[in-house]
Amino acid sequence: MDIQALDQLVMQWLQHGANRLIAHLDDQLQVNTKSGRSDLVTNLDRETEQFLVGQIKQTFPDDQIFSEEGFGDHVQSLKGRVWFVDPIDGTLNFVKQHDNFAMMVALYEDGQPVYGNILDVRRQRFVHGGPSMGAYLNQFRIAPVTPRPLADGLFGVNGPMFAKNRYHVQDMALASLGTRVLGSAGLEFQQVVLGNSIGYCSYLAPWDVAAGRVLAETVGLKVVVPPENALSMLKRELIVTTNAQALQEVQQIMQGDHNTK
Amino acid sequence: MDIQALDQLVMQWLQHGANRLIAHLDDQLQVNTKSGRSDLVTNLDRETEQFLVGQIKQTFPDDQIFSEEGFGDHVQSLKGRVWFVDPIDGTLNFVKQHDNFAMMVALYEDGQPVYGNILDVRRQRFVHGGPSMGAYLNQFRIAPVTPRPLADGLFGVNGPMFAKNRYHVQDMALASLGTRVLGSAGLEFQQVVLGNSIGYCSYLAPWDVAAGRVLAETVGLKVVVPPENALSMLKRELIVTTNAQALQEVQQIMQGDHNTK
Repeated sequence: MDIQALDQLVMQWLQHGANRLIAHLDDQLQVNTKSGRSDLVTNLDRETEQFLVGQIKQTFPDDQIFSEEGFGDHVQSLKGRVWFVDPIDGTLNFVKQHDNFAMMVALYEDGQPVYGNILDVRRQRFVHGGPSMGAYLNQFRIAPVTPRPLADGLFGVNGPMFAKNRYHVQDMALASLGTRVLGSAGLEFQQVVLGNSIGYCSYLAPWDVAAGRVLAETVGLKVVVPPENALSMLKRELIVTTNAQALQEVQQIMQGDHNTK
Repeated sequence: MDIQALDQLVMQWLQHGANRLIAHLDDQLQVNTKSGRSDLVTNLDRETEQFLVGQIKQTFPDDQIFSEEGFGDHVQSLKGRVWFVDPIDGTLNFVKQHDNFAMMVALYEDGQPVYGNILDVRRQRFVHGGPSMGAYLNQFRIAPVTPRPLADGLFGVNGPMFAKNRYHVQDMALASLGTRVLGSAGLEFQQVVLGNSIGYCSYLAPWDVAAGRVLAETVGLKVVVPPENALSMLKRELIVTTNAQALQEVQQIMQGDHNTK
């Protein structure tokens, strides 16, 4: 299957899943906590993941699937074709706002980005594509990023990491033009890929970062475990995405020798 | 003029202004800084304010206007009818994202809330109304808030105040279910009024807070200069909006005797 056909197929799966989510938004949700009081999962996370995993399994029975809610495989190696599925990214927003959440699907082959798709469900904004087809906002091609300094743009962060300045995240954000906290890795990645934010830093699981990394790299952004390590894509890790110029500033900030305000 | 007729008129003004903004979003903006590098004003802020102030002046020549960019009056007293106009709230988002900004208009009489309207321009979401007509999201009536604790909802804050824990803002936000930083007082007020966030705290000018206060009080929220003072509506001040139960927690946090995590 060529990349355009694969893109069309994933778009259809996500649209179908999104329609179903929206239809059930006003139902009484079954909400459970996972690792803590703000780490939620609902029946709709599980059902949406089952649907997406089912579609992938049916179409590509030999591929592995790395997914948030446990309906995929127990992935221990990135060899071959591996899908990453996050059925509802920003579950707190989903539960409390019925808005500002994303669905994400990505495909890697031997650990290399092939395809990513982030859908802002309520806004119907698909940011999708990959290195061979380019990156698109719905049907519109997204321009490559141009290098610019941190002070030129808005910087997305994880709230508690920003508050406590863990890994110098507060220093990074305060060196930018302004800090934003959206509560969804997918929506933060959309903003960076679209050039609306200059960067994003958080502590992310493989399904949180997989689609965003494909799209970010496709438009020329860097995605690293700072200061400059490659992502493992197998465990939660600190991740920064920004352009090459601002990444140098981030690296200086992490070494503690950056002039912050 | 009755409140419904006034509402229709303001809706038309805002829609006209919004259409014009969207039509000119891709023009080269003239961007200037005001008090600092992240306090921006553009030619479109000024032109939009001139339009809104002109409409108010033409329709209500005896009313005073308190507006951000200086085309209104030099308001020194809230006696009589006073309009508050913020042509583009979230100018940084407007400039860098072409999204996530609001237009705001409010009317007070002898310092008492009469009418407020916050338009999320790109989403075409009007949150509008007042004590005599109720609060609406576009044509849908917004339900009154129910008291609930801070830990039950998302809390919006100003980024730098959160980072530095000024006025215990970080303590408040970390006692909630999660922190959000949107970069627009208007959009933060929309979230609280709609019940999507449990509260919002920032340091705001009269035009930043005027419409939000009308709408928040209309749905039963408190809007105070914490711990419990009334707003002056004539100068920048620390402002908290939340429900009565969570406000008690905020007050305890500001007195430093709250059990934060």
